[in-house]
Amino acid sequence: MTSIGLKLKQRAIKVDNFIEELLESRKPEVLYDAAKHIIKAGGKRLRPYLVLKSCEVVGGDPDVAVPFAAAIEVLHNFTLIHDDIMDNSDLRRGVQTVHKRWGLPYGIASGDLLFAKVYEAITKHAPIGIVPCSVVKACIERVTDAAIAICEGQVLDVSYTQLSDMSEEDYFSMVSGKTAALFKACAEVGAVVGGGSTKEVERLGGYAWKAGIAFQLVDDYLDVTADERTLGKPVGSDLREGKKTLIVIHALHHASPEEIKKIERVLGAKDASSSDIKAACELLGSLGSLSYTIDYARKYAEEAKKMLGIFPDSEAKRDLLELVDYYVERTY
Amino acid sequence: MTSIGLKLKQRAIKVDNFIEELLESRKPEVLYDAAKHIIKAGGKRLRPYLVLKSCEVVGGDPDVAVPFAAAIEVLHNFTLIHDDIMDNSDLRRGVQTVHKRWGLPYGIASGDLLFAKVYEAITKHAPIGIVPCSVVKACIERVTDAAIAICEGQVLDVSYTQLSDMSEEDYFSMVSGKTAALFKACAEVGAVVGGGSTKEVERLGGYAWKAGIAFQLVDDYLDVTADERTLGKPVGSDLREGKKTLIVIHALHHASPEEIKKIERVLGAKDASSSDIKAACELLGSLGSLSYTIDYARKYAEEAKKMLGIFPDSEAKRDLLELVDYYVERTY
Repeated sequence: MTSIGLKLKQRAIKVDNFIEELLESRKPEVLYDAAKHIIKAGGKRLRPYLVLKSCEVVGGDPDVAVPFAAAIEVLHNFTLIHDDIMDNSDLRRGVQTVHKRWGLPYGIASGDLLFAKVYEAITKHAPIGIVPCSVVKACIERVTDAAIAICEGQVLDVSYTQLSDMSEEDYFSMVSGKTAALFKACAEVGAVVGGGSTKEVERLGGYAWKAGIAFQLVDDYLDVTADERTLGKPVGSDLREGKKTLIVIHALHHASPEEIKKIERVLGAKDASSSDIKAACELLGSLGSLSYTIDYARKYAEEAKKMLGIFPDSEAKRDLLELVDYYVERTY
Repeated sequence: MTSIGLKLKQRAIKVDNFIEELLESRKPEVLYDAAKHIIKAGGKRLRPYLVLKSCEVVGGDPDVAVPFAAAIEVLHNFTLIHDDIMDNSDLRRGVQTVHKRWGLPYGIASGDLLFAKVYEAITKHAPIGIVPCSVVKACIERVTDAAIAICEGQVLDVSYTQLSDMSEEDYFSMVSGKTAALFKACAEVGAVVGGGSTKEVERLGGYAWKAGIAFQLVDDYLDVTADERTLGKPVGSDLREGKKTLIVIHALHHASPEEIKKIERVLGAKDASSSDIKAACELLGSLGSLSYTIDYARKYAEEAKKMLGIFPDSEAKRDLLELVDYYVERTY
């Protein structure tokens, strides 16, 4: 495991223990089983890591931020369960999606339960006397803003039925809502809990927002360029699922009618052959869409790191810088 | 319009204005259109009324409680949108349900948006300097507890596929979660915002919880006994939809095998003939299930009113007592 992978794992222990207690089963147990299903199946716990490290960067005690970090991980998992319904996905983290395993009502209700548990985690478990009430309120506002942005991003996503109708601006609006808004909330919440100044909170939020965009672009890039063993899923899965990526948007805007046909043949075609996928991936490269996307990712990554310039050197700062470098270097 | 109907309408004005501003459209507009659809289609605004009157009973200014009352109405509407998906309902308040009109992803996302807006209403709009932060936190805890209870109640509901498998205890657990928990939160939140003592908050919560059960029993009763004009929908709609009511549970436990067949013929049968429905309704009467249910409702109503015994006479107290009387008297 990479150094960063180990750090994420280590930081996840207290957060996972907290989540386990938060979601302790009550009646009806099936609701709680369904709610815990995706959380237990895995995940990198990147968002809690951002919360805890942002708390540390401003001089706070990360242990105090654990309930907040857990709340955001629970929020993330709630959105995964509902997104899987909206996207009609069968698998997530190598297991059946909640609505496929238990049925639609359980997918909806278990997502709703997790959303409520986000607020329970914050209001009932923020260490009283250590975290002032005003901080709890400020964190709830940021988490709620992110949840609203996620809903907006998700609806933007499903509302474009034709990928060719999307502009780059549409793509960035969508990713800003679906991914970057919650990253921003992670860093802001961590910084607020850690007692950061307004400027520090703002800079950390900016760092995480830009990092979130970069990470999404990198993920999309690797789906086309990495090998199956590294990805843990077949190459070109995003194409097969018809996922809206900057790569494909750029390609559709720059391809000849003949080339567009080649791309559209595999887009959203769950049964596309691996040779068709391979041809499409090569085409995305020759059209310059891959380098275009990764250049964007690197630009965002550099801007993200610059946002941390105001902070003095510390282990936590180095960890946040390393996180971005690690993510982007995977593509070299 | 009845006197209580007028009072509800009058009290709803400020709450509705608040909700309109809270849900002012942003991009993507379709998300906001979908989120406002059921709220705009009607509803008695019973829950906001409970919040405002409970605030008044303890000597608070109901205007201060408007954002809280709006938050709970928004929460209620979120649960309606998601329940309609889980129950696969076509109509609500005389209009198409959200998922039928816009499709499943919009039903899920607009419900999620409303849920997030509940917390935005409370944290961003609680009048600063008038409502202490600790009160905001206490209200969030109560609203969140109710949301969790609603998820549990809804899953209990969908998890019984056979009505005959349900005991009366199961029924009361389900209704407690689906209906009474939010009523309780209404009164508690109103009382907390109004500055009520622990005992006052508890009594008002008890009042509303019991009233919520009574109201649900009355609604179920009227569905079988009232005429179509009063109901605004066909008699026996609950039977056609296979709704789990105490009436049917009692009847199935007391009927002969022959009679059970008669009831089961119409249960969940959307195309049941009106003569079959009429025969089933008469059977529910002759089995004593109707009087059994309404006796329960009256018992809960009386207990609800008793909970208000500690409060001195006031207009708000009389309004809360009248609300219960009005609801139950409709059945005489």
